[in-house]
Amino acid sequence: MTTTPIQAGELSGFIANLFEATGVPTRSASVVADGLVDADLDGLASHGIMLTEMYVDRLRKNSVSTNEAATVVSDRNGAVVLDAGHALGILTGDQAMQIAIAKAGQHAAGVVSVRHGFHFGAASRFALQAADADCIGIAMCNTRPLMPAPGGAERVVGNNPIAIAIPADGDIPIVLDMATSEAAMGKIRMAEKSGQPIPASWAVTADGSPTTDAAQAIAGMLLPSGGPKGFGLSFLIDLMCGLLSQGAFGDKVRPLYGDAGLPYDCSHLFIAIDVGHFCDVSWFRRAAAAAAEKIRTGRRAPGVEKLFSPGEPEWRRREAAGGIVHVPPAVADALKRLAAELNVTAPASLT
Amino acid sequence: MTTTPIQAGELSGFIANLFEATGVPTRSASVVADGLVDADLDGLASHGIMLTEMYVDRLRKNSVSTNEAATVVSDRNGAVVLDAGHALGILTGDQAMQIAIAKAGQHAAGVVSVRHGFHFGAASRFALQAADADCIGIAMCNTRPLMPAPGGAERVVGNNPIAIAIPADGDIPIVLDMATSEAAMGKIRMAEKSGQPIPASWAVTADGSPTTDAAQAIAGMLLPSGGPKGFGLSFLIDLMCGLLSQGAFGDKVRPLYGDAGLPYDCSHLFIAIDVGHFCDVSWFRRAAAAAAEKIRTGRRAPGVEKLFSPGEPEWRRREAAGGIVHVPPAVADALKRLAAELNVTAPASLT
Repeated sequence: MTTTPIQAGELSGFIANLFEATGVPTRSASVVADGLVDADLDGLASHGIMLTEMYVDRLRKNSVSTNEAATVVSDRNGAVVLDAGHALGILTGDQAMQIAIAKAGQHAAGVVSVRHGFHFGAASRFALQAADADCIGIAMCNTRPLMPAPGGAERVVGNNPIAIAIPADGDIPIVLDMATSEAAMGKIRMAEKSGQPIPASWAVTADGSPTTDAAQAIAGMLLPSGGPKGFGLSFLIDLMCGLLSQGAFGDKVRPLYGDAGLPYDCSHLFIAIDVGHFCDVSWFRRAAAAAAEKIRTGRRAPGVEKLFSPGEPEWRRREAAGGIVHVPPAVADALKRLAAELNVTAPASLT
Repeated sequence: MTTTPIQAGELSGFIANLFEATGVPTRSASVVADGLVDADLDGLASHGIMLTEMYVDRLRKNSVSTNEAATVVSDRNGAVVLDAGHALGILTGDQAMQIAIAKAGQHAAGVVSVRHGFHFGAASRFALQAADADCIGIAMCNTRPLMPAPGGAERVVGNNPIAIAIPADGDIPIVLDMATSEAAMGKIRMAEKSGQPIPASWAVTADGSPTTDAAQAIAGMLLPSGGPKGFGLSFLIDLMCGLLSQGAFGDKVRPLYGDAGLPYDCSHLFIAIDVGHFCDVSWFRRAAAAAAEKIRTGRRAPGVEKLFSPGEPEWRRREAAGGIVHVPPAVADALKRLAAELNVTAPASLT
């Protein structure tokens, strides 16, 4: 089975219609659909349109709300707490970072925590919004526990992601978007399919024992990136997101692919730091871009064709995509099924 | 040769006298000496009294200033830029984090960047100061380039450390203090001495090729923790520290153990986020401590005796130390030599 190429705008319009059919207002349905398609164009398929089925399922079962915005719980100087009420995370994430940016303009830094949140897609989206507004942007969220403590035999922290972006001149953004696990589960599944062993740093068995066997790893647990480093970072992200928002953390965050009738209930944190409070913004942007260019043009190891600055791979994939998403067969089938169920017309190319 | 046990207070008083003999005022000499001895008590010897010789050497050659405080370059809402003027980093770090905490009290978050900085010891020191003041504390600094980009064959980023601490009840602090390299050079040197191979993720040869040979690694370069993750984090720490302060970054930061007559010239960044702006502080402290306790009491893998929460190992080492530092022979010799040169009386136990 091969992938189906489809124009991003057409695909996004179709997915927006699916969301709208579940009760999401038109404009918001478009924003979320565009966000998912953007992730696919960046080559981040795990944060792209493959999520549509799960989002729609949860919208229909009311564990994701059709509300378009979070409500303000508290607003004190540069600190805002929002209650997302289980609305789509891309919507409340955009809202939260825009508030953080506005607060940063007034106070130097804005810090917005969000409780009762839902999956917000790729964290880089929000960090880059801040960078576009001449701020350093930091976005993070917690997930249900997936990884053990070093030496542990039960899941206690998520692979909680953090994204950091800084303003820079030129086309190539400077952004880091990392999960705190050493490897993604997708890479372990690929190793299993090809019968390859995995590095011992990627995962442990279900009782916490070391393994290089992909099947045992899949039945076991992901390991934190860099051992205690990734573990500590993940634990602190969990507490910063969950406690500042007085929302869920640890095992109070539910599985994303668990009972679709129960809210996911994660917590988010958005920080914007206004560069203009410290220095001349155009100088900062020029210097940052020059530093990234220096990384890209550095001396390479034998056999290495190209060095990348943080955020550059996604940008290059988007450039190469030329506005076309290649939809895998399983995703195309799911989208067509949803279209039939919701009385939405699917693009001709998908059918 | 065995280590020499010496009471922390006596050792610190002696080291303070060494600093004072180079012109550092009494009170500041004590603060810095206490900071170094504290790191030894925490089991962080690389950030402890072994640094005294290099600090004194630089103080005598005027590449470290005897000034006790940084000067304020700009102060705009929650943002402050300091010029440390190459003063001892523990002094200007304490000052910067205290300003960040005060700003957080007014604005929710305080962000203080420092240029022309010197080595500030263990970053956790400053993060924990913020946590003691009911703030989330973040401290980071850049170093000279030590690590290549993934696939690179030249040093382009430091193993730039970051520490994050959050307020918590009880005796055991919650703090992460991590360098962005996969392994410390000290661990590679230990492998070389014992003739053991090292994991391929730790280092590359001087031309960027993979190696598990410790000697080749020492002649080569440390690798970032988690590949592109640690690399991206390190690059962003470098730019956040260096650009917000309009100070040095990249190869403008000099080697710590290079020409002692030339300023180190690193940049620091301190962030405090006031918990009371978001929620009840005592609730936050209780919940954070309970989450850490849950980590410590979680199910363990076969053969594992104890699980640790982030920051707990250092705390346990300090408890076990009982106020006694065990000074290695090489450090004792260096301190005695400095004492003779500076006409300072060394503790009897060291001689």
